[in-house]
Amino acid sequence: MVALAPSNRLRRTWWSDAVEACGVTGYTVYNKTLLPVVFDSISEDCRHLKSAVQLWDVACERQIQIEGPDADALMQRLTPRDLSRVKPQKCAYVPICDVNGGMLNDPVALQPRPGVWWISLADSDLAYWVEGVAMGGGYAVSVSEPDVQILGLQGPLANDLAAEVFGEETRDIPFFGFKWLPFGSGEVLVARSGYSKQGGFEIYVTDQALAMPLWDHLMDKGQPFDIRAGCPNAIERIEGGMLSYGNDMTRQDTPFEAGLGRYVQRFDCLGGAALRAHQARRQIVPIQLDSAPPTCDREWSLMSGNQRVGRVRSAAWSDEFQCGVAIGMVDMSCAAGDRLVCVTQAGEIAAEIKERFWR
Amino acid sequence: MVALAPSNRLRRTWWSDAVEACGVTGYTVYNKTLLPVVFDSISEDCRHLKSAVQLWDVACERQIQIEGPDADALMQRLTPRDLSRVKPQKCAYVPICDVNGGMLNDPVALQPRPGVWWISLADSDLAYWVEGVAMGGGYAVSVSEPDVQILGLQGPLANDLAAEVFGEETRDIPFFGFKWLPFGSGEVLVARSGYSKQGGFEIYVTDQALAMPLWDHLMDKGQPFDIRAGCPNAIERIEGGMLSYGNDMTRQDTPFEAGLGRYVQRFDCLGGAALRAHQARRQIVPIQLDSAPPTCDREWSLMSGNQRVGRVRSAAWSDEFQCGVAIGMVDMSCAAGDRLVCVTQAGEIAAEIKERFWR
Repeated sequence: MVALAPSNRLRRTWWSDAVEACGVTGYTVYNKTLLPVVFDSISEDCRHLKSAVQLWDVACERQIQIEGPDADALMQRLTPRDLSRVKPQKCAYVPICDVNGGMLNDPVALQPRPGVWWISLADSDLAYWVEGVAMGGGYAVSVSEPDVQILGLQGPLANDLAAEVFGEETRDIPFFGFKWLPFGSGEVLVARSGYSKQGGFEIYVTDQALAMPLWDHLMDKGQPFDIRAGCPNAIERIEGGMLSYGNDMTRQDTPFEAGLGRYVQRFDCLGGAALRAHQARRQIVPIQLDSAPPTCDREWSLMSGNQRVGRVRSAAWSDEFQCGVAIGMVDMSCAAGDRLVCVTQAGEIAAEIKERFWR
Repeated sequence: MVALAPSNRLRRTWWSDAVEACGVTGYTVYNKTLLPVVFDSISEDCRHLKSAVQLWDVACERQIQIEGPDADALMQRLTPRDLSRVKPQKCAYVPICDVNGGMLNDPVALQPRPGVWWISLADSDLAYWVEGVAMGGGYAVSVSEPDVQILGLQGPLANDLAAEVFGEETRDIPFFGFKWLPFGSGEVLVARSGYSKQGGFEIYVTDQALAMPLWDHLMDKGQPFDIRAGCPNAIERIEGGMLSYGNDMTRQDTPFEAGLGRYVQRFDCLGGAALRAHQARRQIVPIQLDSAPPTCDREWSLMSGNQRVGRVRSAAWSDEFQCGVAIGMVDMSCAAGDRLVCVTQAGEIAAEIKERFWR
């Protein structure tokens, strides 16, 4: 594998030194920020994630902050999700679309304080879009990118560790709920969310002075829970059908095509007219591969006989399920049970569309 | 160094396989695309670049295409550069600013055909901004990102090789001029530009079918010129004072502060009012370091006694000039000849502000 050459253009985080001291072996770049993606190996990292608790540096999930008299109106203009149904102290997954309904980002939005929105980003410079829209529409808002950095605490033992560190009340935080909780001399926002199906929290840190004390404290208190530095895991997230923007869906795809139709609740937003008239051309499906795939670093075609019926852009070998697991985007005519061939750079692999993801 | 983990989110280019066959050892990620940055070592790569000719995969310089009745008006709205002064078949370096005059990108713009603009991007999703502005302002334009990929041909022997491959007329292309020239069954846009001070061309390829034939042909015809696969070189570009967006200047800086004041020629653009009223708070300067710096992967402070007077975000050791070379952003009160201290992660290095860059 080729090294990632360091550069100031690629932001280090408050925890990059700690992550490197813990032996990170693979980075990706996400929102121009270093994101660890491998420590031991993705299969060993996966096994551990499913059995214990991991501390993740996901500071690459940058925040856009919107505040001002028109903040609510602008937020609703940006997404087809009906934000009036989102309760206080809850996060909301909000597809953001261009005028054609193409996905520009699939962030999580929340109101850390009344009147203030944070958009917690997937990998694109959505701030440019938000500001362009705000400016063009004359919205009375201020848009900024505060330096909020997020620690993930993921795994089946995350609940017990969070209860020990932040108090028993963390057990009562519902899925996608959040609370501000004291830590050290300040407070952090603790949300029950994260990019795994193992359960856990994302901890939004707004003060760098708390960042390493929090890391060290969680590592210390986590020893009995076999805590390790970890990261979003390619195997586990595919098994769980968790999509990756830029991999599984891009701007060429609509929320309907990305399997996110349930979040299209209003059409008075940007892209709303296109979404209302939309006929999905394709669909996200789980793909089982009969043998271990090579590294999925380029798009693979899914063939039905001589016909290309779709693509795969995320794939891995699952030790737990003893098959290749992949996320496919296939024609609407395809259905669960269809046998296909996946054409990789290392040859063809027999594939099947599954009814549901593995977790 | 940590590996860059492959992912479809990080685009491979038409030449990634060839680049890897030539032994690339370091990548960066630029516009979500792989950009080679090291082959042998940056010092050996630098020596060769200054003596021969290199073929660069700079497909990461993605293009935004603007066309339609209001294309010219939108382009002029986006930049303080006076585009009416840009002649046909010429490229133009065009700072793009937000409403505060902060730099969003420092691309090169050109009209590949009458009525069509390409914005050849530095590292940010500027399309989101352009579309937001176009939509808000009601401009009759179509904005897209065509899959145009660029090969760089850089080095003192680039002229001779280009003349052999594309014809003697390439010698007459002026600096930042371009011509469409035939290659194979199609044509390519050959511009006298590039991210080095060694001279050479950027070849815009619009048809993937031409991409590898062009690479192979240039490599073949380049043998007598000692051609190698190469890439933008950190040492050479700092010696030459070539800025890197995201490193040397960011959205926090204005064109004036980035030393690009000569491109601020009109104020009827976005950010124009702010630029008109602007008082520069800092300036880009060459910084000489008395000893070899460590890897510049984080911002370093420049100190004058106990006072922080600036920052360094790009630095390297120059074999040619036998000193450390760096790009600094310092307070307006600083001047050439000032002796400073540069605080790196590996200790302090004595530094001096130079009158001019090394090349």
